[in-house]
Amino acid sequence: MVIVTKTDATQADIDAVVKRIESVGLQAQVSTGERHTVIGVIGDKTLLGDIPIESMSGVERTMAITAPFKLASREFRGDEPTVIVVNGTKIGGRQIPVIAGPCAVESTEQIVTIARLVQKAGASFIRGGAFKPRTGPYSFQGYGKKALKMLQEAKDETGLGIVTEVMTPHEVELVGEYTDMFQLGTRNMTNFYLLREVGRAQKPVILKRGMSATIEEWLLAAEYILSEGNPDVILCERGIRTFETHTRNTLDLNAVPVVHELSHLPIVVDPSHGTGIRSLVCDMTKASVAAGADGLLLEVHHDPDHSMTGDGAQSLFPEQFETLMQELKPIAVAVGREI
Amino acid sequence: MVIVTKTDATQADIDAVVKRIESVGLQAQVSTGERHTVIGVIGDKTLLGDIPIESMSGVERTMAITAPFKLASREFRGDEPTVIVVNGTKIGGRQIPVIAGPCAVESTEQIVTIARLVQKAGASFIRGGAFKPRTGPYSFQGYGKKALKMLQEAKDETGLGIVTEVMTPHEVELVGEYTDMFQLGTRNMTNFYLLREVGRAQKPVILKRGMSATIEEWLLAAEYILSEGNPDVILCERGIRTFETHTRNTLDLNAVPVVHELSHLPIVVDPSHGTGIRSLVCDMTKASVAAGADGLLLEVHHDPDHSMTGDGAQSLFPEQFETLMQELKPIAVAVGREI
Amino acid sequence: MVIVTKTDATQADIDAVVKRIESVGLQAQVSTGERHTVIGVIGDKTLLGDIPIESMSGVERTMAITAPFKLASREFRGDEPTVIVVNGTKIGGRQIPVIAGPCAVESTEQIVTIARLVQKAGASFIRGGAFKPRTGPYSFQGYGKKALKMLQEAKDETGLGIVTEVMTPHEVELVGEYTDMFQLGTRNMTNFYLLREVGRAQKPVILKRGMSATIEEWLLAAEYILSEGNPDVILCERGIRTFETHTRNTLDLNAVPVVHELSHLPIVVDPSHGTGIRSLVCDMTKASVAAGADGLLLEVHHDPDHSMTGDGAQSLFPEQFETLMQELKPIAVAVGREI
Amino acid sequence: MVIVTKTDATQADIDAVVKRIESVGLQAQVSTGERHTVIGVIGDKTLLGDIPIESMSGVERTMAITAPFKLASREFRGDEPTVIVVNGTKIGGRQIPVIAGPCAVESTEQIVTIARLVQKAGASFIRGGAFKPRTGPYSFQGYGKKALKMLQEAKDETGLGIVTEVMTPHEVELVGEYTDMFQLGTRNMTNFYLLREVGRAQKPVILKRGMSATIEEWLLAAEYILSEGNPDVILCERGIRTFETHTRNTLDLNAVPVVHELSHLPIVVDPSHGTGIRSLVCDMTKASVAAGADGLLLEVHHDPDHSMTGDGAQSLFPEQFETLMQELKPIAVAVGREI
Repeated sequence: MVIVTKTDATQADIDAVVKRIESVGLQAQVSTGERHTVIGVIGDKTLLGDIPIESMSGVERTMAITAPFKLASREFRGDEPTVIVVNGTKIGGRQIPVIAGPCAVESTEQIVTIARLVQKAGASFIRGGAFKPRTGPYSFQGYGKKALKMLQEAKDETGLGIVTEVMTPHEVELVGEYTDMFQLGTRNMTNFYLLREVGRAQKPVILKRGMSATIEEWLLAAEYILSEGNPDVILCERGIRTFETHTRNTLDLNAVPVVHELSHLPIVVDPSHGTGIRSLVCDMTKASVAAGADGLLLEVHHDPDHSMTGDGAQSLFPEQFETLMQELKPIAVAVGREI
Repeated sequence: MVIVTKTDATQADIDAVVKRIESVGLQAQVSTGERHTVIGVIGDKTLLGDIPIESMSGVERTMAITAPFKLASREFRGDEPTVIVVNGTKIGGRQIPVIAGPCAVESTEQIVTIARLVQKAGASFIRGGAFKPRTGPYSFQGYGKKALKMLQEAKDETGLGIVTEVMTPHEVELVGEYTDMFQLGTRNMTNFYLLREVGRAQKPVILKRGMSATIEEWLLAAEYILSEGNPDVILCERGIRTFETHTRNTLDLNAVPVVHELSHLPIVVDPSHGTGIRSLVCDMTKASVAAGADGLLLEVHHDPDHSMTGDGAQSLFPEQFETLMQELKPIAVAVGREI
Repeated sequence: MVIVTKTDATQADIDAVVKRIESVGLQAQVSTGERHTVIGVIGDKTLLGDIPIESMSGVERTMAITAPFKLASREFRGDEPTVIVVNGTKIGGRQIPVIAGPCAVESTEQIVTIARLVQKAGASFIRGGAFKPRTGPYSFQGYGKKALKMLQEAKDETGLGIVTEVMTPHEVELVGEYTDMFQLGTRNMTNFYLLREVGRAQKPVILKRGMSATIEEWLLAAEYILSEGNPDVILCERGIRTFETHTRNTLDLNAVPVVHELSHLPIVVDPSHGTGIRSLVCDMTKASVAAGADGLLLEVHHDPDHSMTGDGAQSLFPEQFETLMQELKPIAVAVGREI
Repeated sequence: MVIVTKTDATQADIDAVVKRIESVGLQAQVSTGERHTVIGVIGDKTLLGDIPIESMSGVERTMAITAPFKLASREFRGDEPTVIVVNGTKIGGRQIPVIAGPCAVESTEQIVTIARLVQKAGASFIRGGAFKPRTGPYSFQGYGKKALKMLQEAKDETGLGIVTEVMTPHEVELVGEYTDMFQLGTRNMTNFYLLREVGRAQKPVILKRGMSATIEEWLLAAEYILSEGNPDVILCERGIRTFETHTRNTLDLNAVPVVHELSHLPIVVDPSHGTGIRSLVCDMTKASVAAGADGLLLEVHHDPDHSMTGDGAQSLFPEQFETLMQELKPIAVAVGREI
């Protein structure tokens, strides 16, 4: 259940409602939007008994949330989308921020070079893997802490925010010292301890959709993070597993309008992993923007043939990325956005 | 193998090459493009032995086609896309034609009303099922020939071209008397006798992707039609079957750039069946255009709640369709097209 | 709705009920089992109004069928499984008949040789394609009528029943002159005109599951056949399409107990297509019997490396088939059956 | 590459080979089978240069392993299957051990009651979740350490071995104090830190297949565990995600013979999760044994309607389990096994 407050509700009103809820053993989660504050009630609602919540001062109405995800549901914020500000960039607003960079951080030179190139082309964040989840144990697993420091240098040089993956609860603290946003990969969408741990961190989380996760399961994974107190979750569609073998994954752009209908959380799209083929990335990025994506994740590498992860095949060349950024502008405008 | 002719090759040159090919028991298929004529050689190439095809008059070069689909492959037309003209409208060119209408033809009044509305909004074709493939035998199966006549009335009133489905070889002739383009539905993509029969007809064919067909299988189905002599095949992406249950199908927009890479055939997109949910159709139509779709199939119904097929849930209201058509214009321009 | 009659209901009782149903414009379908006769009522049940069917002579009870498939539902025959007798062999009873043979009929010698081998090993039917559905137009499409005659010779030599595929409505008559059971392939499960046409034929039909058909859709396809008056439908699980690429298809044995729960129709299993790999066929055949399969379809070829369809890779050698037949016996006994 | 030693190779021979391998900077992993010892060489084989390994004392032959999984590949153990002994029970041998119990440990009384019942019926291990991975954060997450102690009581009472899930690296030590085998759930198959951590533990690991993992990816996940030095990995097929909605998952029994072909590791089957429906479990368990399963995981609950996890719908009643165990015996014998 959520309690929507009046626009003129005072802090005292809200505190009183929260106190009342907690007095019967329920948990209250307060979410402050531009238009009104929403108080989520978590637990067995029958405990509220006959308490006349709707007639308390400052309360406009109460609403049941029927979806299994509560805090992630659109109703929870009274239809107001979540906007997250990271390193000076808004995610979820009119602007469509772009997160670009190589699959893995390979050297300071590599990451700084790419950071400069993508910044020049208009990206707001540099991405690059320090800890890499790999299908087999003998593949390159990332340079770890060394790579985090290289990302820091790239940030120092360019001012770009950092996005990098965290793979296990006990590295959340370490990765959090460097990154501006945590990335949780497709293989960790159901790593529930990790979800909870980033839920207790103070940084935004990009939550990639599991390879075969339904949208409902994905929003429930987001709910794990939200329910620990971290409201800044950004969903990322990165392709699902289907029978089709021509593309590496099947980028499911339907997820963009579906998420916008079901949730207040922003959703970004990763056409690089979604297709796995460089020549398809630009068209699918344009389609992502047209579908309503709130941001983009793109692999860019200045020397993809020598990439250490084998993901070079899906990386854009810097000049392609630059052209793409220009071509996206009129599409963004056509759907009421900017890039 | 294909033989690409010089731009100044004469008809006599071409005839001589064809004759030479047929003289060793192979089949030749001639495709005339704007830039050059391409002669496809079908059958066991070793029969050509030492015949010096490349030194014959008018021949520029020969090329092996490694894809299992030959006539459908991009190489077959020397990288020149196929443009099909139907009822005065070009498909596969700069313009993005729109095919709109109800799932099923329900009455003359219904189809004429909708035809007028979609024409006003900018559609070039009216669609509507006369023969309906239905999952179960007790569902409404379409009004058949009566419905074809209603479509004719809609065409007479508006000048719109007709697109309607044909379900079995022996109805190709009947449906062909009325329709401007045959539609082959997702459930008939592997109805090989039907593919061959429309391959022998003189009208363009919209070939919907099978629900779980790979793109290669789909192009091989097109090859059935092409190999019978009908060069006018238009592919239609309409959503594939995946594990996701929130949407009726998973519209696979990746298929658009993939088909453009592999084939010279135009590809149109059907976001109505691809999502199955009205509120998602507009965003996914925009995404289709941005991804490079050569045309659109959209369900529009002025009274979807009383639709006879239960597909009302995915039909746009006429006013939504009208707005959408306007909103698509700048996106089309952004990708070098017009709508 | 179905009307279950008493065990001592007379033909006159049944005729009276049918007449009553038809008098209000509904359709009655009579199914005679060993225990009782069941009368299916097709159409809008409200037309029955207050007619006291349950108090008519010979009527035991009426039952609503909530499944979308009616004649195919378990309830329709009062929980009594359908047993079909073909060429002296019962399908759906205690005995598990085996249908064996090559993918395609390649010559009289080939089919007669294989027929003798599989008969010796215990098969009851010889299978072999005369009309072959192939993914591409340039693959071997079967010898057609000539192959039907070769099958006839194999039958004349061995007494084995014939099972062969029919691909299009207008060949049902021709194929029906030779075959004992029609086979409808996975690519034709939604070829609704073909379903109806074999529904009007007087021979049993093996209906293969569509590559991505849900069990409900499959039973609805069976319903098309049943609703035309042919009660002898045998379902065949032959592998579904999934993300797994190691096997050609994913044999879904869960379908066996599910079909037994939902329907009275027999279900046979085809582990050859279901796996696509010879070395897996024996284990999966054993699993099929243990899961409750009512019959088996197996590809057997005495010279699979020279098979004309490329399906040799999944064909058992005759000696493997012979050994397998022996190994299946104790498993059949363990689940209360015989082979 | 693997080095297969002669049956009469001495420890000194083996040590010498290992030393030689390590001297060029490669890693050697020794696996001792009944017939011969196999030495796996991990790393860049070109480092071996011209070293004449094959002529060293005790060496029979060397073999390249082309599969991406090395230690998990069948060749690695010279075609000899791995047999693991846990709590006195062999897994991977002639005997088919059964692991049975409730989804979650709910109370001492519950787990001891069920342990006694399943032991009486012939199970060798009691299973029950202490730490439960749940799709949403508001579902019952297991009683944790308390539940581990309850499992210990059940073991003390019955002598059954314990199987319980571990969800995160830092709980491996705790869970390892109680369990006889670790279970890694389908949602953690790509939790690579967890794989490595159990790879460093001294207890066998049951590795469930990821919901949409290919068999190759699954074996690569096993390789993570093996490569850390733990040779005792048992694979568990538990159903994959497909388009079919009637069953909770699609139990993929093809995986059983495929794994036996590709790997030396034992594979057990979990028909309870694989189907999600009680009435299907018995048939699919029989099919699992017939397909060659090396063991079974079955949910059994004496009061499934009051199960705390909602998985009651797939739990067998104790009497069903008892009957099933009897019915499995002749099937096991038919495939050369015992239960």
